[in-house]
Amino acid sequence: MVDPSKPGWTRRPFTPWYQEGRSWLEQQMEQSGLQVSTDAGGNLIGKIEGSKAHLKPIMIGSHTDTVIGGGRFDGIIGVIAGIEIARRLQETGTTLNHSLEIVDFTAEEPSEFGISTIGSRAMVGNLSPEMLKRTDPTGLVLEDGIRMIGGNPDKIEELARRKGDVSLYLELHIEQGPVLEQNKKQLGVVTGIVGIHRYRVTVEGKPNHAGTTPMDMRFDALTGASELVLELERLCKESYSDPVVGTVGKFINEPNGANVIPGLVTFELEVRSIDSKIIEMIMKKFADFSNRVATERSLCITLDNLSKSDAIRVLPDIQEIVADACGIVGESQYLPSGAGHDANQLATIAPVGMIFVPSRDGRSHCPEEWTDFEDVTRGVEALARAIMNFDHSI
Amino acid sequence: MVDPSKPGWTRRPFTPWYQEGRSWLEQQMEQSGLQVSTDAGGNLIGKIEGSKAHLKPIMIGSHTDTVIGGGRFDGIIGVIAGIEIARRLQETGTTLNHSLEIVDFTAEEPSEFGISTIGSRAMVGNLSPEMLKRTDPTGLVLEDGIRMIGGNPDKIEELARRKGDVSLYLELHIEQGPVLEQNKKQLGVVTGIVGIHRYRVTVEGKPNHAGTTPMDMRFDALTGASELVLELERLCKESYSDPVVGTVGKFINEPNGANVIPGLVTFELEVRSIDSKIIEMIMKKFADFSNRVATERSLCITLDNLSKSDAIRVLPDIQEIVADACGIVGESQYLPSGAGHDANQLATIAPVGMIFVPSRDGRSHCPEEWTDFEDVTRGVEALARAIMNFDHSI
Repeated sequence: MVDPSKPGWTRRPFTPWYQEGRSWLEQQMEQSGLQVSTDAGGNLIGKIEGSKAHLKPIMIGSHTDTVIGGGRFDGIIGVIAGIEIARRLQETGTTLNHSLEIVDFTAEEPSEFGISTIGSRAMVGNLSPEMLKRTDPTGLVLEDGIRMIGGNPDKIEELARRKGDVSLYLELHIEQGPVLEQNKKQLGVVTGIVGIHRYRVTVEGKPNHAGTTPMDMRFDALTGASELVLELERLCKESYSDPVVGTVGKFINEPNGANVIPGLVTFELEVRSIDSKIIEMIMKKFADFSNRVATERSLCITLDNLSKSDAIRVLPDIQEIVADACGIVGESQYLPSGAGHDANQLATIAPVGMIFVPSRDGRSHCPEEWTDFEDVTRGVEALARAIMNFDHSI
Repeated sequence: MVDPSKPGWTRRPFTPWYQEGRSWLEQQMEQSGLQVSTDAGGNLIGKIEGSKAHLKPIMIGSHTDTVIGGGRFDGIIGVIAGIEIARRLQETGTTLNHSLEIVDFTAEEPSEFGISTIGSRAMVGNLSPEMLKRTDPTGLVLEDGIRMIGGNPDKIEELARRKGDVSLYLELHIEQGPVLEQNKKQLGVVTGIVGIHRYRVTVEGKPNHAGTTPMDMRFDALTGASELVLELERLCKESYSDPVVGTVGKFINEPNGANVIPGLVTFELEVRSIDSKIIEMIMKKFADFSNRVATERSLCITLDNLSKSDAIRVLPDIQEIVADACGIVGESQYLPSGAGHDANQLATIAPVGMIFVPSRDGRSHCPEEWTDFEDVTRGVEALARAIMNFDHSI
């Protein structure tokens, strides 16, 4: 069920390996007593009816697609956890008040269509007709891909779930970072999913001869840009009411000749936090600093905003339900999610919560991605307990 | 006499345009009373016999090849100056004690054979048989190129000039930097040609997820490298007994993804000065600083020396002769040459001196390269006076 022509564990959406995986999942769901269906967005859903028909369902899920050269845990454990919980409910003859839906969301990872979380977008009515018409490099039109896996793109808008249609969405996921491992915790109670502000920074100087231009007659774009890179790091390392990370990931130096003073540096920076006011304060200070560097070094520095995504906050009572469940199963801590998930989309129509389990060395999206089986088990147990807590609290 | 298929003024060695230029030069030399010949290295030489046969010749010259997309002054004015001086000697019926040789050196600029100053290397016996066998991307073997322009590669070693064979080598050249223009000087008395030490620096961190890795758990190669870039600048901006410049020109960030913490930065740095002790002191401090950064940030930083070229110093008495000549003609100042010249090669067998004239905006190796005609004239006048001073001082 993985593409043997690609490194690691690769299962890209709409491929034969993805469809094979889906067939296997369907079988597992049926064996666990779930009624299986595929919704308009191609999301595979297994359902158990609850005892109180007026209650909107609890939904749990994640995704089974991977990045190219990915691992065996990211997304997958969230879907398998749902099936395992269904199996145990069936085994113990337990009926919940709420219906329970286990979802394998279509194509969560960044795709060749230029969007991610395709299935959860479709579910909440956030996949536009324009997006559905996009084509990937193989010539596949997104809506045809969705049809291929059993979806009905023409009905996405009509059948989208609206605010209030889901009582609670919970997702178990690997942390994809080093925090739980470093702090020796087995479980993470997610407080929110960070918002991301991205900027392109252009530092323009003059590309002069490295031998004949004295130090005090230079307009070196690289030394100017280096000051900015360090200032962003300094600002993000300060202590704030919520965690914040800032990164310069992409950095291009021109003309990039060994004996030419750099004339142009272009880089992309991003700042992430669940508090957008912190991000904005940092970017304000960064812009002021850029202006000072531009003046001092006679460079032309411009900042262009590329995107601003809103943070998702987990409601305090949901955090409490999840924290209580985790507390019984193992050592846990609160932390924000630094990456996006299907929960981002579900948050537009329902309360959401997430549970993290540790990632060895903080790694993900690579073949080395690993979470000990004991930790996965604890995550499933905590997820089951959180569902029971919520179901009984009504 | 320039390649119309290339930008700016392009006259690459061994091309029809180069040969056309050479024919024109030969004619000019003959009209100025010079006996013209081509030596084993393909250097075009015009000679006037001196009155004292036991004195070794004074040599002046430069080159007429250009970089691709070059200008009309770099090298060229040095050759034309020689012819003009010969013309005036002829016109005024002046005979020098020393013979005077005017040289258009073959292929001074960086070539597709991976070497520069090909003709002056040949003249002093520093063009190895291995170099002569090198091929450029068009398939031309260097020795065949030299034959094509009238040289005799088989005789280069045998006919090379030895230490003492030339009394003095003087070269008029554009500054290629902004110092004279900024200081409102018309002439530069060159104190030496800088030595260059080049290093490759590798900064290795860990390429983690930009969202999920907290600031205090990062091993960011780019922020570490930024500290090094700024430290090199700081060290080179300090005040030393001789000028020094240091540059990071080439800088590559990996994996260079907007949402990935940089895991590897590779950059090339160079430090230039006519005092190699200053370069070595700076590199010692830089290496110490690199070690501190490596420890503080848990990065792996390595410095690999790529090359060390020795500086050329102009002897004090030659500086004095040149300074006296310049002082009569205009406002002058002492300065080192930050770029290499044919004088580097000649310095291995003879005392050398150089005169600089201003470059507008410090630019060279581009179509915008410009020196006012009045400044070129002053340079020729100063060169002529320096020759007379030296000739009479014997």
